[in-house]
Amino acid sequence: MTATFKEGDLVLLYQDPRRHWITRIREGRFHTHRGYLDLKDLIGLEPGRLVKTSLGQPIAAFEPRISDLVDSFDRPTQILYPKDVGYALYRLGLKSGDTVVEVGTGSGALTAAIARSVAPNGRVYTYENRREFLKSAQKNLEKTDVSQLVTFRNVDPSEGFLEREVDAAVIDLGDPWKMVQPAWEALAGGGVLAGFTPTMNQLEKLAEALRMNGFLALEAVELLVREFKTETGKVRPESRMVGHTAYVTIARKVVPKE
Amino acid sequence: MTATFKEGDLVLLYQDPRRHWITRIREGRFHTHRGYLDLKDLIGLEPGRLVKTSLGQPIAAFEPRISDLVDSFDRPTQILYPKDVGYALYRLGLKSGDTVVEVGTGSGALTAAIARSVAPNGRVYTYENRREFLKSAQKNLEKTDVSQLVTFRNVDPSEGFLEREVDAAVIDLGDPWKMVQPAWEALAGGGVLAGFTPTMNQLEKLAEALRMNGFLALEAVELLVREFKTETGKVRPESRMVGHTAYVTIARKVVPKE
Amino acid sequence: MTATFKEGDLVLLYQDPRRHWITRIREGRFHTHRGYLDLKDLIGLEPGRLVKTSLGQPIAAFEPRISDLVDSFDRPTQILYPKDVGYALYRLGLKSGDTVVEVGTGSGALTAAIARSVAPNGRVYTYENRREFLKSAQKNLEKTDVSQLVTFRNVDPSEGFLEREVDAAVIDLGDPWKMVQPAWEALAGGGVLAGFTPTMNQLEKLAEALRMNGFLALEAVELLVREFKTETGKVRPESRMVGHTAYVTIARKVVPKE
Amino acid sequence: MTATFKEGDLVLLYQDPRRHWITRIREGRFHTHRGYLDLKDLIGLEPGRLVKTSLGQPIAAFEPRISDLVDSFDRPTQILYPKDVGYALYRLGLKSGDTVVEVGTGSGALTAAIARSVAPNGRVYTYENRREFLKSAQKNLEKTDVSQLVTFRNVDPSEGFLEREVDAAVIDLGDPWKMVQPAWEALAGGGVLAGFTPTMNQLEKLAEALRMNGFLALEAVELLVREFKTETGKVRPESRMVGHTAYVTIARKVVPKE
Repeated sequence: MTATFKEGDLVLLYQDPRRHWITRIREGRFHTHRGYLDLKDLIGLEPGRLVKTSLGQPIAAFEPRISDLVDSFDRPTQILYPKDVGYALYRLGLKSGDTVVEVGTGSGALTAAIARSVAPNGRVYTYENRREFLKSAQKNLEKTDVSQLVTFRNVDPSEGFLEREVDAAVIDLGDPWKMVQPAWEALAGGGVLAGFTPTMNQLEKLAEALRMNGFLALEAVELLVREFKTETGKVRPESRMVGHTAYVTIARKVVPKE
Repeated sequence: MTATFKEGDLVLLYQDPRRHWITRIREGRFHTHRGYLDLKDLIGLEPGRLVKTSLGQPIAAFEPRISDLVDSFDRPTQILYPKDVGYALYRLGLKSGDTVVEVGTGSGALTAAIARSVAPNGRVYTYENRREFLKSAQKNLEKTDVSQLVTFRNVDPSEGFLEREVDAAVIDLGDPWKMVQPAWEALAGGGVLAGFTPTMNQLEKLAEALRMNGFLALEAVELLVREFKTETGKVRPESRMVGHTAYVTIARKVVPKE
Repeated sequence: MTATFKEGDLVLLYQDPRRHWITRIREGRFHTHRGYLDLKDLIGLEPGRLVKTSLGQPIAAFEPRISDLVDSFDRPTQILYPKDVGYALYRLGLKSGDTVVEVGTGSGALTAAIARSVAPNGRVYTYENRREFLKSAQKNLEKTDVSQLVTFRNVDPSEGFLEREVDAAVIDLGDPWKMVQPAWEALAGGGVLAGFTPTMNQLEKLAEALRMNGFLALEAVELLVREFKTETGKVRPESRMVGHTAYVTIARKVVPKE
Repeated sequence: MTATFKEGDLVLLYQDPRRHWITRIREGRFHTHRGYLDLKDLIGLEPGRLVKTSLGQPIAAFEPRISDLVDSFDRPTQILYPKDVGYALYRLGLKSGDTVVEVGTGSGALTAAIARSVAPNGRVYTYENRREFLKSAQKNLEKTDVSQLVTFRNVDPSEGFLEREVDAAVIDLGDPWKMVQPAWEALAGGGVLAGFTPTMNQLEKLAEALRMNGFLALEAVELLVREFKTETGKVRPESRMVGHTAYVTIARKVVPKE
């Protein structure tokens, strides 16, 4: 944990489940609909402290987790949900020091989460051929403290990733099957691939490409998350929920016996 | 990635989705229902290599991920599923170097996953007052390469954890509400708590205790995971699935304004 | 099926999944955002016919099913969804000629579906102590062709239903446990009860009351329905879904051995 | 409700959620693992009565609902679950007096549920080209009181159903798209079709055939049902659940403007 907040730190200002914001501590006021904060007043406070707006409204000042930061990213594309990100990171088996290739970068949400998992000395090479997305992702990553672990490549890797012997490959674009062979070449033996596909047709084609191109231990899942109201005496799932984001496919590279 | 397998390494031998085993590379044979392997033959191979049993059956030799290891743990208690572990690790915001307290240890499954997330220089203090569980967990942890990051405590922490200023607290036992106040005291400001509760009644009492004892940003969710068959032309969810494991509650410590 | 539409019939005008309306065939125009229909032009047409608006927009004129009518009801209260209604009707075992008591009427949605199930010669006695809800429900029921099978009672039945030897009892109000004993008295031996409860606390109390008051074969379920996009090559669940409506509890009256 | 049980009636003997049986009341004993019943002793009892076995074990004697009967059917094929049957019956809008065509009959489970919905004067024409399935279904239907409403046809209707102007068509076989055109011809205008498809590929092809062949108001859904434990203080979903049965597609016949 950060000992205390200092100028330039990012802070998560939390009022209630619907009102929370990420901002940087600098000269100036942060305005809410119920009073403002002088951001400089946060300097020297330990994270988690409850402070009050000019109108006496309490707000907690938290150090943002990577999932908070990702949630605040500008998103030109559909963003993956914590249910999918958490599952994939765990099943990819990412750890400090790992090297990962990713395509496409999109908003950089997954890039950030991966970089966080391989910090402090791992590396993420992320490919995105739409330049405006790459720029947006770069800007998003600057909000995190892991941007220095990310190499952005404005290249289409369907002809091949530049990296070799990587620990994991992550594919999150519309035609993931095109990246299966390049990913196989980039991965070390036993390296893990994760693919995200919104439609069952994409899932079908990705799974077939993986089976045909040297991957084993394939598993495809769909995660559903239900949020709960927990008021005493009135416990129940929320009335609305996210119905679908993407199928998550995990598989591992095998190397034929010589 | 491990460059090549060497004596003493753990290996995941993968035949198909229902037949895979974790074993240690040493003198001797590993028997499957379709032939055996001489384990010494794996020494010097790169992970991910397809080898053949004495009867010509192909088997892949993978380096186990932490989720593979956890899946192979002896489990005196209900074990958490990847859907829950992945989500909780991500929402806890764990990172290399973090310090975590956990109660109770159970089979050590979550302990191992947490230790993996805070490696190489973080630390997990795990509390379990049932001595036989603790022993089983210690034995399980020895299968991983992160056991040196874990301190086992055969103590009931309801009177207080021994640690202070920890980054995260994880509660996985039958009466989690008793651990809320001790967890608050152990956590640094803004530190994150995760609780796992199988019943709605436990969820209700845990949530109430969190709201009454200085936690904010409470969210309670339930995750469902559906496995898919991906054979071309026959894509469909599996006929059976896990219906329920536990509700996952996440909240953050707040410190009142002085 | 109605041979052909005639004046006074209700018609479901269907343009697309988001634009469909129920109206009565009478003198006058029905306006859509893309032209109008002269409703009289529908007279003499067989149901299911595609007609065109004044601007050439095709619209199908269907005979409304009971589920279409219910969907168009004014709803002062939360309405039950087809997933719950269909399941409950089937598990209640309702059939032509059955007699049913219901409390509370609410918008009359479930009342209409039950009446449809017991038509043409069954009967529904529905209790609602909020007079304005009862009026709204009566008006809603008039849209259906089963209103003559419904007896509305502006009475609180917690002291006892007026009916005896009924085939089924349906409880859909906030404190369903209060109606368990009255329902037992109203039901014939083996009669089936269905209860709808949004929270798990209500479910818990209802289930306990049923077990304590002469009911057996208790089952409690929660139904989730996921809508699918079925465009060729892009099959996937919808991005948003209903997360929760109510738990459905079914149980049967037993009569102790004399 | 049956006034009292008489010889020849079917009875549901209910001991607990895992031990319940359907049998016919006749001369002889019904043996359970905890004593037997003289079935003749049930004659003259009202349904719902608790009786005792020779060893004093209480058992409730219920009149079986159609869903109980269906649950007891011999099933050469995968049987549909109440979640799917209830939803489909409700969305088909079936009512007393309706005429329905069905293909294939399978175990007759859906046939029975449909017949129950259109009783006492409706009719179901069910097509099954596998003779052994048809025989099994006929035997199953004889357990119900609606078998006289069912006409079995050992014919492949892909060349055309024999019926015309039916209210509903139900398709439950492996290549449902072949039955779309025949169903259109058999249905009255606005008539409703329901199709059941286990795989997403079948769903995709069925939906396309419906859109291409004169059907509108298409909706495709998947239903999940979770059973709950409701013991006081320990409310939670069951640990295991059915993961998937079939996608349910509903659509209505439209007739082009002349």
